[in-house]
Amino acid sequence: MEHLEGRQSVLAALAARQRKFQVILVSQSAHDEKIRDVLDAAGAAGIPVKRVAGRDLDAMAHGATHGGVMAVCSAKPRTTEAQLLEILEGFSRPAMLLLIEGVEDARNLGFTLRSAEALGALAVLIKKHVWDFDPIEVARPASGAFERLPLVRFDDTGLIEKLRARGMRLLGCIAGAKRSIYEADLTGGIILAIGGEKRGLSGAVRGLCDGLVTIPTMEGAASLPLSHAAAIVLAEASRQRRAIG
Amino acid sequence: MEHLEGRQSVLAALAARQRKFQVILVSQSAHDEKIRDVLDAAGAAGIPVKRVAGRDLDAMAHGATHGGVMAVCSAKPRTTEAQLLEILEGFSRPAMLLLIEGVEDARNLGFTLRSAEALGALAVLIKKHVWDFDPIEVARPASGAFERLPLVRFDDTGLIEKLRARGMRLLGCIAGAKRSIYEADLTGGIILAIGGEKRGLSGAVRGLCDGLVTIPTMEGAASLPLSHAAAIVLAEASRQRRAIG
Repeated sequence: MEHLEGRQSVLAALAARQRKFQVILVSQSAHDEKIRDVLDAAGAAGIPVKRVAGRDLDAMAHGATHGGVMAVCSAKPRTTEAQLLEILEGFSRPAMLLLIEGVEDARNLGFTLRSAEALGALAVLIKKHVWDFDPIEVARPASGAFERLPLVRFDDTGLIEKLRARGMRLLGCIAGAKRSIYEADLTGGIILAIGGEKRGLSGAVRGLCDGLVTIPTMEGAASLPLSHAAAIVLAEASRQRRAIG
Repeated sequence: MEHLEGRQSVLAALAARQRKFQVILVSQSAHDEKIRDVLDAAGAAGIPVKRVAGRDLDAMAHGATHGGVMAVCSAKPRTTEAQLLEILEGFSRPAMLLLIEGVEDARNLGFTLRSAEALGALAVLIKKHVWDFDPIEVARPASGAFERLPLVRFDDTGLIEKLRARGMRLLGCIAGAKRSIYEADLTGGIILAIGGEKRGLSGAVRGLCDGLVTIPTMEGAASLPLSHAAAIVLAEASRQRRAIG
């Protein structure tokens, strides 16, 4: 059993219908009109709402931003390989996926998921990190994207072969690659792979790549933060994909 | 008096020559060859290096990642308006500046500065935030960019008029603007303004803008995190600027 903190996270999880809810806890001091959307969504889903003292919520919460709304529910289920392939099957256009290795913490992972969703990634493949980080800490900066995005635990490179068999290409984003993201074709079925700041992409993933691309940066500057690199390459892919309609 | 934590921060500050150093503190357990670059740079600048117990560094540090190297030094001086105008004067190409309002914390500000430098921003204008946040917390994720980038405290909109008089345009990046960053001309002398996630750009800054642009995102997704939005718009500007070379 897990819990969710904050109105946005609870609403997003209710809408995504991936978790099983036991109860929604609302601070006694929260005004009905301020949390009307939570009460309505809980009512529609037949989930009990319990009024509790604010200090009881504080005691349960991992963070300080629950704002008087929490939920007790099952963990977000991970998307299996089979489910991912099914999602791709049902998607009428060429899909864009993000693969991340070596995210340094829960917060940056959450921000990355939020950008990935906003920029059109259909799902995110993540080495076991996401399942090790505190999911509440991932969910908060993700602002709902953690609930909505299919997250696939990537620990078997065989998945890449299966995706490739479906016409997808794996492009690794690394410092110093000869081709820039602006020169590369980022349309079509594509998996964009970004590695951690310290080690970059692992040899295992690099060895699987159909191509390597780089984000041009100024000489003498530090490398881009991983979550920013992911946002930039997804935005460029999204630009190219919109251009061809 | 402030202090710096970690080899990278200390090296970047020494190279940037903006701070006045009192002493560099090195853990007794740090091997000379691992910190050779710090010792060399300190020697060249005539700054004393003192060996201290690791636990004394731990006691002084705000974070846990000093890795046995710290420095006692003056604060990074802010760049005045006059200095900024002088920098622009001496820059032979049209400059790109970033203006940020409403960054939520020191860490995201640090990441944003790092991307800004990597993507070619010449200086960053920031409402008083940067001077309120713990500079050590800003400097660490900035990975040297905090030391190298001119940071201008922006509390007087008169600065924008002065920049405009020098041929620069102020473009505000907001959700829902009609023109996308891909349709807008981001070449030439330009100030890119990004607002906080909660309130967006302030009315004061919006009122000064020569144009508004938006980053296209998926319907139903949450807004982009501020630091990601900044990275994406800077990257697109950088792409356009490289293209005209």
